[in-house]
Parts: sequence; structure tokens; C-alpha cells
Amino acid sequence: MSLVFLVGLLLGFFVVVNGIDLWPMPKAVRRGSQTLYVSKDFRLSMEGSKYSDGSGMLKEAFGRMVSLVEAANTIDGNLPRYGVLAGLNIIVNSPDDELNFGIDESYKLSVPASGNTIYGQIEAQTVFGALHALQTFSQLCHFNFTTKVLELHAAPWTIFDLPRFPYRGLLIDTSRHYLPLPIIKGVIDAMTYSKLNVLHWHIVDEQSFPIEVPSYPKLWNGAYSNSERYTMADALEIVKYAEKRGVNVLAEIDVPGHARSWGVGYPSLWPSSNCQEPLDVSNEFSFKVLDGILSDFSKVFKFKFVHLGGDEVNTGCWTRTPHVKEWLHKHHMNGSDAYRFFVLQAQKIALSHGYDIINWEETFNHFGDKLNPKTVVHNWLGGGVAQRVVAAGLRCIVSNQDKWYLDHLDATWEGFYMNEPLTNISKPEEQKLVIGGEVCMWGEHIDASDIEQTIWPRAAAAAERLWTPLGRLAKDPNRVAARLARFRCLLNRRGVAAAPMVGFGRQAPTEPGSCLLQ
Amino acid sequence: MSLVFLVGLLLGFFVVVNGIDLWPMPKAVRRGSQTLYVSKDFRLSMEGSKYSDGSGMLKEAFGRMVSLVEAANTIDGNLPRYGVLAGLNIIVNSPDDELNFGIDESYKLSVPASGNTIYGQIEAQTVFGALHALQTFSQLCHFNFTTKVLELHAAPWTIFDLPRFPYRGLLIDTSRHYLPLPIIKGVIDAMTYSKLNVLHWHIVDEQSFPIEVPSYPKLWNGAYSNSERYTMADALEIVKYAEKRGVNVLAEIDVPGHARSWGVGYPSLWPSSNCQEPLDVSNEFSFKVLDGILSDFSKVFKFKFVHLGGDEVNTGCWTRTPHVKEWLHKHHMNGSDAYRFFVLQAQKIALSHGYDIINWEETFNHFGDKLNPKTVVHNWLGGGVAQRVVAAGLRCIVSNQDKWYLDHLDATWEGFYMNEPLTNISKPEEQKLVIGGEVCMWGEHIDASDIEQTIWPRAAAAAERLWTPLGRLAKDPNRVAARLARFRCLLNRRGVAAAPMVGFGRQAPTEPGSCLLQ
Repeated sequence: MSLVFLVGLLLGFFVVVNGIDLWPMPKAVRRGSQTLYVSKDFRLSMEGSKYSDGSGMLKEAFGRMVSLVEAANTIDGNLPRYGVLAGLNIIVNSPDDELNFGIDESYKLSVPASGNTIYGQIEAQTVFGALHALQTFSQLCHFNFTTKVLELHAAPWTIFDLPRFPYRGLLIDTSRHYLPLPIIKGVIDAMTYSKLNVLHWHIVDEQSFPIEVPSYPKLWNGAYSNSERYTMADALEIVKYAEKRGVNVLAEIDVPGHARSWGVGYPSLWPSSNCQEPLDVSNEFSFKVLDGILSDFSKVFKFKFVHLGGDEVNTGCWTRTPHVKEWLHKHHMNGSDAYRFFVLQAQKIALSHGYDIINWEETFNHFGDKLNPKTVVHNWLGGGVAQRVVAAGLRCIVSNQDKWYLDHLDATWEGFYMNEPLTNISKPEEQKLVIGGEVCMWGEHIDASDIEQTIWPRAAAAAERLWTPLGRLAKDPNRVAARLARFRCLLNRRGVAAAPMVGFGRQAPTEPGSCLLQ
Repeated sequence: MSLVFLVGLLLGFFVVVNGIDLWPMPKAVRRGSQTLYVSKDFRLSMEGSKYSDGSGMLKEAFGRMVSLVEAANTIDGNLPRYGVLAGLNIIVNSPDDELNFGIDESYKLSVPASGNTIYGQIEAQTVFGALHALQTFSQLCHFNFTTKVLELHAAPWTIFDLPRFPYRGLLIDTSRHYLPLPIIKGVIDAMTYSKLNVLHWHIVDEQSFPIEVPSYPKLWNGAYSNSERYTMADALEIVKYAEKRGVNVLAEIDVPGHARSWGVGYPSLWPSSNCQEPLDVSNEFSFKVLDGILSDFSKVFKFKFVHLGGDEVNTGCWTRTPHVKEWLHKHHMNGSDAYRFFVLQAQKIALSHGYDIINWEETFNHFGDKLNPKTVVHNWLGGGVAQRVVAAGLRCIVSNQDKWYLDHLDATWEGFYMNEPLTNISKPEEQKLVIGGEVCMWGEHIDASDIEQTIWPRAAAAAERLWTPLGRLAKDPNRVAARLARFRCLLNRRGVAAAPMVGFGRQAPTEPGSCLLQ
């Protein structure tokens, strides 16, 4: 036994007594006390896999994982003769690699402690489970600054893992500030590190309409500038980029409020030039344009759901504008009726394009019994909503703003961690209707310069809440603080600008010190 | 003439009337009014070049440039039949590609407006001039959101360019907070976009000693943690990464103050355990260790200069500690004499390892006439220093903290832009002694989470001051505000977290709006 190996054993012991350093915590973990040394020629094998990887998705993910664990340090030490981990064998049972809501994300990762040529083993039902396993594996690798090799401590490992909720989202907002493609891709990459799986893209809002809609090409006249725009090919690029990483993209087109920017290109969508929101409910053209948008979206955004917004609708413009007022009168509607009419029409259009619908909670609060049964209600106003939604038999996504709005800089990571989606929901059939939760990075004060540090590490705290079985979550967030701090430093080592945990969201470090203590 | 071509001509005209959109502004620019279309198979040719690119430096830089201009949008339009720019032919006169202080960085970039197969032409004395030309070229390419192709407006172009100062620096500080390798690499990449060419690495300070010194392996016991460290191989990786991009790395080892962390591994370097700074001047071991450090450094840091610090030395510990006090007495020195003694000894050691020396200005202020003539004095305390330094016949780098300290969040981009290194220096032989300037990103409140937006765009404002001929610089910063705003948005599109220009350094956007107006 070499000296290096002895040192490794001691370090392995250190890890054991200091707990499991994985974020989010897997469902079940068993480990030993041996140290392995990661080969410089670390290999992917797919022996026994039914998945052929025609798209190259798995090979690319493996390559990214290796780059990631090698990025922070220069690995130039000599490997010992024993205990070298040569690669990973990945067995995927399903030949299919179409990502969508509810696919099997489970995996088993095992790393033996001995053998002639040691290979770790990943087994997963789908390639997307295997991607999660690669993320977990990447967190097991540690650079040894004495021997200058990558080590894997505490082998043998057996990890069985699957998510608690199928929907684990993060919202970005490209209307208040345009986010360039490389920034969005960076957000997606970082999401995979904590196993979030839905990028909710709040594309359009009252301030700007940055996306191309081929059916109505003047819509993106509402962009801030010529260059602050996404072509449909850009949207497809984002969707493909995300899907290859196991992340679904949920497109949102918020109607009838939050849509002032539509009328820059098509002013007839405004009730009048000085009353520009909500979209004109009396004008059939409003629904034609929405139909065109969703028709174009359906070619690119293949996620089961589309988000139709429906929040914060002030119908004052409708009841003040003569021709709309007349229309309301003719149809025996008041403003509130017309709001419901608009939302339900929009739902029908979305359904006609094959989508299930997500709507913000105001739609449920105002006319929950009229919503299409396929509706998922997206909570945001506060706690206690999910229990009413699921009691009404509808599905729910939890994003109560007091805890899970990332733009609330006074919302602490502890609050993100402790926010339980199933609060006061005890019946199993009702629990199942809570499909998950989402943290929201609204863009009023967020652009390319501050998005990363406002998202991380707080979004990661929520990610563990959404992934890890309830019984394995800490009752006291202080018990996970050190582990989350290590994860935030890991994000930094991967080039992600995750902020200190101390203080408010994205606070600068208050004094010199170790990343681990800030 | 196709419709696309006509549209292009109009757009080209638009660019002409709106001025030259390059940052930093080149020395001389001539252009026309034609629009060219960048080929999807954009090629590098090196016909007639005396540089063989054995290291692959130029090919890699070309590849990065192409990736960069293609990163922000999906290019899937059809190119017209005429006016296609097929590639760049790069002629480099010097076969040598060793980077160091004072190499020729000039280049000529010309893009014809017509021809059968249109190639842009870059001519440069060294490969590093050609790298600058590629950066300039990258800023000429614009995505057309209608045709979905990359365009180059206002051809033909003839640009002749070279830097005003040979030293254009940016300081990073890895002692107050550790900066992971990918973060440092990101800083280097962004430096090249505004043609900065020296990364001043303030490696060690009183708080932590993050770097490996093979000669004295306990020194990095002073690191914050096991993982917040750089191996010598990591340092070499940073140097090589920077050199390939035309950026020199200036290593700083600050003595005798700012060195408390040295004693964590070697406590005898402290005057006493409760008096830990400056390094013990009476102990020969202090100089032996410095000699070891510089010996190890000289194998990795090949820049002509090493920075020996020498700032903020409080000799109280020396005059209070009995054995040091005794030594001072024996050598007929007071604290001030001993400070000079230490700095001059350190200079001798650095010279013996082949380095020229840079010292912070206190050394000049206290005993300028005793400094080795090879010394470059690094100004920081305020304005007016450079003129005294060059009058004394020494070289100078300007970094007056009131204008060029990036950690001063109240230092505005306008102040960065207007800070003139040659203020009150009129004699040509004295002007030549000001080798350049440097913006300083001290790390007390800076870690991986906030370094990018604290550096950019303010450092870019200084970069133009250091690059562009005085006569082409704006007398009123408002005249360059729109162009700098476009450059900051370009940085965002390249994934760099450059902050809004409005408000203080790294301020979050105050309201929704276009990147160009914030």
C-alpha cells in the first residue's frame, strides 16, 4: 500500500465523519471509507444500455461532467497503481430520449471500492436520470492539493435517488430586461447542478416584446431595440440546449394583462392609444394574434404546458374605453366577467394547440370552478393557496412570493429552504396534485450583470426542498448551512457567480474571508 | 442587386451616420458604405505570413473570435450571392510569439467592399497585434434580425491601430477572497475585448497565502482552506491561458507589509506571535524565503517584471519587538531605515532572478533616490505622483485610487475615462517613462460572485484612455457614453456580467429598460 493510498484512506475517513457532501441530498446513500483516484483518461462505457445515444446527448453530458470536475484545478499528479477509477458504465433502460413532464428521473449510482479495473455504474430508466447521476458523481470528485490528482472519497458508494416533485422550476423574465443567449445558457447549466428541471421563460410583459412571432411579424417591434430580440431560431436553440441537459422550457405569454408591448407593432390590440392594457377583449384580433403566437410556439416549445399568465388584470381600461364598454354591455358582461372570458378563450386556444395550461393564481381565485380541468394553478401571492387549489381538484405549482421570489432580496436562503409546498395538505391524492414549485427571478432590477448572484445560492436551497424526500430534509436550516456553503463555493469553482449566504440576496462579501464562511 | 443587399446598404448608411462603433477607438479609421455578409464558413488564411503558428495560438484565437460573434444569435439566414466576406487573411511578420513587455502590438485591418471572393486582411508585426485586430474585427460584425445573417457594415474599412501605452493593466486580489481558476480565466477573456494587456495578480496579502511555493511548502498553510489554493501548475495554467490571449501576468509578492499570512506556515517570519507584520527584518530567513518564492516564481511568471509591493509598511512591530529592536540598534537603523533596507534587499533578490521591479509608490516617496534604476514606481495614493517619478528618471504606472480603484464604488466610469496618466508631464523623454496605467480590483468585498460587474464596464473606460491616441479621446465623456453603453451591452451578449453605466459601480438596474440606456 503506497503512502498516497494511506493518505487517501485518512482523507476518506475525514469525509465520512463530516457527512455527505452532496447537494441536493439524494434519497438513499450508503458509502464506505476507501479513497479512489480518478483516471486522467476517464471513460464512458454504455455496455448493456438499451439507449443508443444517437443524439450524442449522453456522451456530451459525460464530457461536460469531466470538464467540470477538471476545471478548477490542474491535474498533474501521478496516479497510484491501485484504486484507480477508470470510468463510468451507464445503463439506460429506455431507448427514448424525449424530455417532457413526468418522465422517470430516477437513477442508481454505485462505485465499487476495489477491482482490477474499477468502473462506477449508473443505472437509470431514462437518459435524464443518468444525467442527474452524472451531476451527483461530479460532486463526489475532489482535487487533492498534495497529490494533485482527483480523488473520490468514501467508496464504495451506493446511491439511489429520485425527485420528490416532477416540476422543479426557475422563472426568468426577458421583458423587463433582455437576457442574451449566453446568459440564459449559463442559467440552464447552473440549474442542472442542483437538479432543477423547468426553465419558466416569462418572455413578454408590458415593457418589451423581445421574441419573433412569424405569424405576426410586427410584434417584436415592441422590443427595446433592434438587438434586444430573440428569433424563433434562438428560442429553439434555448429549448434544444435545455433539453439536452434535462431541462424543460415552459414558455409564458401573459394575457390579457402584462401585454402592453404587443400593441407597439399592432396598436389595435390596445383598447385605445392612451389605455393600453389589458389587451382589447372586444377585438377578435386579440385572440387571432394569441392563436398565431401559440401556433408558432407549438413548433418550438414542446413542453406539455404553456403558461398563459392571467395575473394582475386591471379591467379599468375596458370599462373606460367607449367601444369596449359598448361590447361589454352588448354581451352582458362586467369587467370581471370579461376577464374570465378572456382567460377561458385563451385556454381554449392553447388546448387547440395541444398544450395543457398553467395560469397564475388570480384566475383560480376569481373563477376557479370555470377553469379547464387541465389547468395547473401557479401560486404566487402567498401561502395557503395550494391547499385550496388541490382541494378543488386542480394541480398546483407553489411560488409564494414571500419565500420563493428571488427578486425579494430580503428573502433569505433559510426561507427558500424551509418553504414546504405540501403545508397543510395531507391526503395522498391531493398531495399528488402539487406537481412542484418554482423560484422566480423577476427582471425589474435584473439584467445580465446581476442575474447569477441573485439566483444562486438561494435557488439551490429551494432545489433541495423540491428534490429530496421530506424525511431527509433538515428541520432546522442551520443543519444544512455548511453543506450549502460548500455547494455555493463549488458553484464559484465552476464559474457561477453564486453570492455569499450571509446577508441579503446577492450581497457582496462584507469582509475578507473564506468562501466557506461567507 | 438583391433586396437583401439593398437593405444592407441602407443599414450600412445608418452605421456611418451614427459613428464608429468600436471600443477602444483605433488610431486611424477609414470606411465606406457597403454592407458585406459574413460567410457561415468563415475562414482563416495565413498566406504570406512569416509566423507559422506552431503553438496554434492564432488558429485558436480565430476560432474564439468566430464563436464570439456567433454566440449571441442563431445564424440561419441565406447569404446573398454578392458581397460575401469569406474569411480573413492574416499576415504576421515576426515568426516569434514570445509575449513580453514592449512587444509590437500594432496592426492594420482592411476589409475590401467588393471582389470575387472577399477576404479581410490583417497585417501585424507580431501575432499579438493580429490578436488585437481580431478583437476589432469582432466588433464590426452585427447580426441582422431580419435576414438572420451576420453583416459587416460600412465596408471598405481600413484601420491602422496601435496602443498609446505599452502597459495596460488590471489588478486582481486573491488574498482577500480566493478567485477560482474559471473566474480568473473569465477576467482575462474580458480584458482582451478592450485590449488590456497586463493581469496584475496580487496573489498574497495578510489575510491568506493561496499559492503553492515548492521551495517553502508550508507557506500555503496560510490559505483560507484546503481548496482555496493554487498549485504552481494552476499558476502556469493561468499564465499560459493569458499569454495565448496576449495578456501578460504580473505576479506580486508584497513585502515587507501585507504579509502576515506567510507566518501561518513559518511563524519565525513574524517578529513575534502577537506582532505579525511586517516580516521580521532582522531574520535572514525572511530573505531566504523571499528568494525561494522568487526562484519558484521565475519558472512560471516570465513577464519582465515582478511586483514587490512595499506599500503601507507600519514598522511599529519592529521597534516594539525586543529582538528586532536590538538588531536595529546594532545596525544603527530606525524603523524607516529598516523599511528601506528590506525593500532594497528584496529588489536585489528579484534582480538576481532576472526580474525588473515594480514597487508601490511609498518606496519612492520614502527613498526614491535609493531605488534601483530598473524600478517602476506604481502610483496609487493620488494624482501628481507620476510627474515626480518621471522627473526623477524612474518609470511609472498610474493607478491613482480616486479614479482607477474599481473597489471604490463611487468612482464613476466618467472618472475612469478622464483620468489622464500624462497630466502635467510634457517633456517627451519624461512622457516615455510613464509606461501606462492600471485599474485595481481589490478584493476585500469582491469574490467570484461580484467581480465581473465591479470590473466592467468601468475598466473598459480606462482601457480606451490607455489605448487610444490622446487626440482621439473625447474631452467630454458624455460624447462616448452611447458608444461605451453599446460596448457594455456587447459584453453582456458575450456572457460578461458588465454592470449598468448609470449609478455607482456594479449598481443593479434601477428600473426596467433597454441595456443601451442603463
